[in-house]
Amino acid sequence: MAVKLDYNNMIDKVVGSEGFSLEDILTLDIRTAHEKMEQKRKDNLTDWRDLPYNQKDVVKEIKDYVSAVKEDIDAFVVLGIGGSALGPIALQQAINHPYYNELPKDKRGGYPKLYVLDNVDPERLSYFFEIVDIKKCLFNCVSKSGETSETMSQFMIIKSLLEKELGKGNISKHIVCTTDKEKGNLINIAKEGGYKVFYIPSGVGGRFSELSPVGLLPAAMCGIDIKKLLTGAEDMDKIVSNPDVQKNPAYMYGALHYLAMEKGKNISVMMPYADSLKYISDWYAQLWAESLGKKYDNEGNTVFVGQTPVKALGVTDQHSQIQLYVQGPLDKVIVFLSIDEFRRIVEIPKIYEDIPSLGFLGGITQNKLLKTEEYATEYALVSNGRPNMTISLEKVDEYNMGALLYMLEVATGFIGELMNIDAYDQHGVEEGKDATYALLNRPGYDEKREQLRKTYQKDSMYTIG
Amino acid sequence: MAVKLDYNNMIDKVVGSEGFSLEDILTLDIRTAHEKMEQKRKDNLTDWRDLPYNQKDVVKEIKDYVSAVKEDIDAFVVLGIGGSALGPIALQQAINHPYYNELPKDKRGGYPKLYVLDNVDPERLSYFFEIVDIKKCLFNCVSKSGETSETMSQFMIIKSLLEKELGKGNISKHIVCTTDKEKGNLINIAKEGGYKVFYIPSGVGGRFSELSPVGLLPAAMCGIDIKKLLTGAEDMDKIVSNPDVQKNPAYMYGALHYLAMEKGKNISVMMPYADSLKYISDWYAQLWAESLGKKYDNEGNTVFVGQTPVKALGVTDQHSQIQLYVQGPLDKVIVFLSIDEFRRIVEIPKIYEDIPSLGFLGGITQNKLLKTEEYATEYALVSNGRPNMTISLEKVDEYNMGALLYMLEVATGFIGELMNIDAYDQHGVEEGKDATYALLNRPGYDEKREQLRKTYQKDSMYTIG
Repeated sequence: MAVKLDYNNMIDKVVGSEGFSLEDILTLDIRTAHEKMEQKRKDNLTDWRDLPYNQKDVVKEIKDYVSAVKEDIDAFVVLGIGGSALGPIALQQAINHPYYNELPKDKRGGYPKLYVLDNVDPERLSYFFEIVDIKKCLFNCVSKSGETSETMSQFMIIKSLLEKELGKGNISKHIVCTTDKEKGNLINIAKEGGYKVFYIPSGVGGRFSELSPVGLLPAAMCGIDIKKLLTGAEDMDKIVSNPDVQKNPAYMYGALHYLAMEKGKNISVMMPYADSLKYISDWYAQLWAESLGKKYDNEGNTVFVGQTPVKALGVTDQHSQIQLYVQGPLDKVIVFLSIDEFRRIVEIPKIYEDIPSLGFLGGITQNKLLKTEEYATEYALVSNGRPNMTISLEKVDEYNMGALLYMLEVATGFIGELMNIDAYDQHGVEEGKDATYALLNRPGYDEKREQLRKTYQKDSMYTIG
Repeated sequence: MAVKLDYNNMIDKVVGSEGFSLEDILTLDIRTAHEKMEQKRKDNLTDWRDLPYNQKDVVKEIKDYVSAVKEDIDAFVVLGIGGSALGPIALQQAINHPYYNELPKDKRGGYPKLYVLDNVDPERLSYFFEIVDIKKCLFNCVSKSGETSETMSQFMIIKSLLEKELGKGNISKHIVCTTDKEKGNLINIAKEGGYKVFYIPSGVGGRFSELSPVGLLPAAMCGIDIKKLLTGAEDMDKIVSNPDVQKNPAYMYGALHYLAMEKGKNISVMMPYADSLKYISDWYAQLWAESLGKKYDNEGNTVFVGQTPVKALGVTDQHSQIQLYVQGPLDKVIVFLSIDEFRRIVEIPKIYEDIPSLGFLGGITQNKLLKTEEYATEYALVSNGRPNMTISLEKVDEYNMGALLYMLEVATGFIGELMNIDAYDQHGVEEGKDATYALLNRPGYDEKREQLRKTYQKDSMYTIG
């Protein structure tokens, strides 16, 4: 497999007392956690694990759809939030040209530009319509429940705009929905409007949905080979189904983070050394935070657990975060994402040879400079007793990205089992959602509104300015 | 002042046992910390505090320069890393159109596009030259020491490229340097090449340099009113020089974070509720991490202190991080950046009135939806006993941004004094830098190279894949 996990720098023999021994790892109840993973898979509670296998028809349908529509549109616009936005952004940045939207269409292979509107910021939406022609846009409304307020309110605005610009009967070609097959509003709205629909399998939650049509459609629309993506995930699935933690990179990743959390390391840094992988950290941040941040364990005990994901980028953040990682509290695990081979080589010319602090740069490549800095940062962390590990990719392509995403998903599920929590729920977001509904007078939330008004008051004494 | 600090939700009466009392705050040795701040100012150790006052001529020079060059160039390209990149990106995103680079030049007020190349990723640089015409670019090389490997290697590549394209004698108009007036290589290189130069005052470190020419030049080059920026900082300076913590938002911000750290809250989340402020979190992350992440205190005791900054964005990250913030460990302070008035209003049309989960959205504005979600998230955090505070801006403009940045800088300096550390050094990055130099055979680093080879070895036993 072209995706590897190097956990040398998590081992006490290498990194010192903040590290772990093989015995620490093997003492964990890996077997029970593995059995729970297998059982959930059998019980169809983790349907995202089947996505590499059961989407042959979906892939064909998506590809046919893309071929049919791509010529007529300038921009493919995702209306989605959370997993519906983070995965598509991460893949686009990884695979395609870093300035994709600034290329002319022929340099994009005839594919449309990609925009992801995940916030309800009014400035964002309003300014967005100054740079696109709505008549040449295809909007992808993504919501499994069909009641995500942010996405659906954007949809409502855009549907009305389209009707105004094109006439009521002419908008269906400009909308494609990704939603649940049976439940929710969006499927009904789509049927009524005659919009094209792709389905999110019912057992696939938002943060585990990137390899479903949620991620596949935007990817294919930008020329990404989604079949290879799924093949990478499939091949990784075979590896991460191995019960032996020493042969299973996802289990090892989860086990080591579990040990780290037990030791008080409540922060997990994801630090790719490549611009192309920058937004993998954002996608991972949702996966790790929502899955592991929990008040209760599986027995209902109050536990308040979870590790906070932090996004960093090498080498850039050596000039921003490394001071803290090297000298600050011993509260972190740092994960490097490393690429063996970049798609380009850039040479630094042999000039300023008489200036010692510059001359040594001449004649090497940027590739070598970056890789050397990465190695040096690892070394600096180890020298200061800071555990870290490296996930390395031979190169950034669809196959390896599919494998990487899938590996991190399984790692997340696995650590959830070790922690004895439900990695697949997110009850903690309900309080805020309910309060929003209450304050906006959604029917059925009167009691919540009363409660909110009674319990939450601010005091001007505690405001400065 | 149009920038306010609301710390209600840090107070125990509001948020419960994880909060603090006024007495907790007033028991801190605010006076000594204040005196140290004043003394450092007098001793010219914090020259960044003078930037709002002593740059009248610099502002004029920058404006004249911008007027003279802007017509001839399509793109202004910053070569810089750390503070030289994070500040310019943050301000550009805050003040200008969110799709600025995609607008035609006349819609940008005749100003050039802005690109910031902060990484040495070879793909980034190579692909970059596919979307710009190098003959229409002005490159701003920013390095105080003139020996920042990343920036200087980029400069070396670009200088050679320019010479190839334009001829050796014709490149000086395409380069402008920002560096120290006396020390380092870049000033000499600039003089020799006849490049325009702006100076970074010697007592202004990278992460405190945004209000110096480091930030002012890129800002002015994109039409941002840098005079107003400095006026905002100046007016804020008057407020944050007040020794009374209850009247000084920077001191209060620092004091509350100090108390939070003492209570084991090792994470500081910055969560703007506005796309325009998203990159303020990146700028803040460097400021907070590098300034406070320290191994030693001022007496040389080993302390391993620092709070890890985390970037989040409202409402987007409600669908990514809030689960963790509401239900996870009690290890965070969350700071909201809140805007009273957005520059646009977007209405959600009154449709789907028969669908209860959508109908309530019709007829309100996106502005109201966002503000309601922000309030609801605050409430959810408070209901779950999670301390948080809000910095609110009347609106996003130059004046308020200057005030905000300056306030956060003073807050950082102040908490450094409370922590009894040096907030202005960054010795922790030297180890990695030295290792890089050693591995790339920079003269004088032979010993380091030997040490590295002897002490740092990886074992294939700890690699999977």
